[in-house]
Amino acid sequence: MKPDYSLYLVTDRMHMSTRTLGEAVEQAAAGGCTVVQLREKEIPALDFYMLASEVKKITDRYGIPLIINDRIDIALAVGAAGVHIGQKDIPADIARKVIGQDMLLGVSVGSAAEAVNAVEDGADYLGVGAMFPTVTKPDAGYVSMEELGKIRQMVDIPIVVIGGINRENAMLFQPMGIDGLAVVSAVIAESDIKKSASILRSLFSGKEAIGEL
Amino acid sequence: MKPDYSLYLVTDRMHMSTRTLGEAVEQAAAGGCTVVQLREKEIPALDFYMLASEVKKITDRYGIPLIINDRIDIALAVGAAGVHIGQKDIPADIARKVIGQDMLLGVSVGSAAEAVNAVEDGADYLGVGAMFPTVTKPDAGYVSMEELGKIRQMVDIPIVVIGGINRENAMLFQPMGIDGLAVVSAVIAESDIKKSASILRSLFSGKEAIGEL
Repeated sequence: MKPDYSLYLVTDRMHMSTRTLGEAVEQAAAGGCTVVQLREKEIPALDFYMLASEVKKITDRYGIPLIINDRIDIALAVGAAGVHIGQKDIPADIARKVIGQDMLLGVSVGSAAEAVNAVEDGADYLGVGAMFPTVTKPDAGYVSMEELGKIRQMVDIPIVVIGGINRENAMLFQPMGIDGLAVVSAVIAESDIKKSASILRSLFSGKEAIGEL
Repeated sequence: MKPDYSLYLVTDRMHMSTRTLGEAVEQAAAGGCTVVQLREKEIPALDFYMLASEVKKITDRYGIPLIINDRIDIALAVGAAGVHIGQKDIPADIARKVIGQDMLLGVSVGSAAEAVNAVEDGADYLGVGAMFPTVTKPDAGYVSMEELGKIRQMVDIPIVVIGGINRENAMLFQPMGIDGLAVVSAVIAESDIKKSASILRSLFSGKEAIGEL
């Protein structure tokens, strides 16, 4: 089944408003987040595995897919729905061979050329960004709205945009044919994670959310 | 086929005497090293993958197994012979499920209790240590010769010893029923890697090596 990518939460323990990652994911899922990507750098694999196992229980309860960033082995170990890789991870075509055809493969791209390559390599969806400046990845390069439009024209797999997505720009993307918003701090760093997730999802899909804003 | 564990090289780019890791592995293999474990922490997965692909060409040429430390996904991606995991990596029983029965699973242990658990979890061989102080892992705990003897009595899979193995102690282990020496700096940091590997292998197996010393 093709996932609903509308509100794609990427975790970041550095910027959480809650005490635990499990709480943050739980609240985001309750607020309508449709996919969770667990992203952890520089922690021992055992800790990552334990964390992924814990988060998987929550995403299973909400019936939403869990995606693991970079570490395909952790994804296989916990039975995650898929993996998400960047341009500095294992090459996408090799990742596809390792996970087989039944797991989701997401690839981060920053240009139309990278997008076309990722599709050829077997990506199921693309993460395009960074769109705007963001506290969680201050050194990321930016993708212009023009380049995003070009990518959308050139590939026909789902696209989520990432990097600086917030309430001011959340409504810009669905009219362009983008499938979802990937958010980190705009959900996870907010004092009310559930409400923030709910508002962003409404804004993305063009539903009335003014009353809540 | 059961590997020959006599001289098990663990790589460490921080302590190499050669310019490239490929050169170091090549020279160690030429000197008689029988297994290569690639250990890399804190480098992007793409770099690890590229490095593992390069080293695999060398180990294939010498007909010796390549083992990947920690990152099972890199091992799967390059078609390595196996993986080696520590107590802070993905749990051994889960690692076994991920790699299946055809790949080697090595587990680092520091006590008889950990050794027995590792065997139950599906380990093919054990790395026991650290035996002695070492520059490459200064914070490792030590395993006494008594504990090593106890481990040898309690498990029947191959055991390699690691941590501070050098020409002074290389001859102590085969009489105890240990299957090989795992070495890092005693080979890789030496000015003549090939000769150092050859001498250690001879010393381990009790063959005459005095002429070369």
